[in-house]
Amino acid sequence: MQKASLAEKLALISEYWSPKIVGEINDSYVKLVKLKGEFVWHSHENEDELFLVIRGRLVIKLRDKDVVLNEGEMFIVPKGVEHMPVADEEVHALLLEPKTTLNTGNVRNERTVNAEWI
Amino acid sequence: MQKASLAEKLALISEYWSPKIVGEINDSYVKLVKLKGEFVWHSHENEDELFLVIRGRLVIKLRDKDVVLNEGEMFIVPKGVEHMPVADEEVHALLLEPKTTLNTGNVRNERTVNAEWI
Repeated sequence: MQKASLAEKLALISEYWSPKIVGEINDSYVKLVKLKGEFVWHSHENEDELFLVIRGRLVIKLRDKDVVLNEGEMFIVPKGVEHMPVADEEVHALLLEPKTTLNTGNVRNERTVNAEWI
Repeated sequence: MQKASLAEKLALISEYWSPKIVGEINDSYVKLVKLKGEFVWHSHENEDELFLVIRGRLVIKLRDKDVVLNEGEMFIVPKGVEHMPVADEEVHALLLEPKTTLNTGNVRNERTVNAEWI
């Protein structure tokens, strides 16, 4: 039962595209992540996924539109919806996902990582 | 499938202690709330509850300690743990709670409200 400072936790993250767990809430994890560059197209069959931008500008590409998120903006990608996050410059984001969520969703490749606590 | 700006949504909230829903994610709602003053002691029997402070300074009183949250700090109150939020000055916070969560938890009184979308 500890509080967490998002800035302090983010300062511990050095790797891009590797979400770290900062909280456990019911069946979900709160994660923090640093993003830069393009990710991969993927979807999460059974899980909605929340992105909240803490710093920078994140584009979440969907097949039919781009969702542009600036600091303090959030978007929930509904289950089953293909998406690809793109960050031209470094982005800090908070994610909320069920514990079962894999970062690459339905895709398993070299970008797939298992999230750990930070 | 719309993004939400936390600042824009918060600007629409006039009442204290009345969380508004800004997103639906799996079995939970993302809510925004403005707090000022003392709430009531309560707990949520089956649900953890996340507080993320967006503006101001929030004290979450527990029976054995106070958790002081400044901007950018979060705390998860585990299910069953009695707590009372206190905000000496106006606080803006993001909450994450299962859809079944009542703001006053195990207590039902004049502070109980049903959250609506904003």
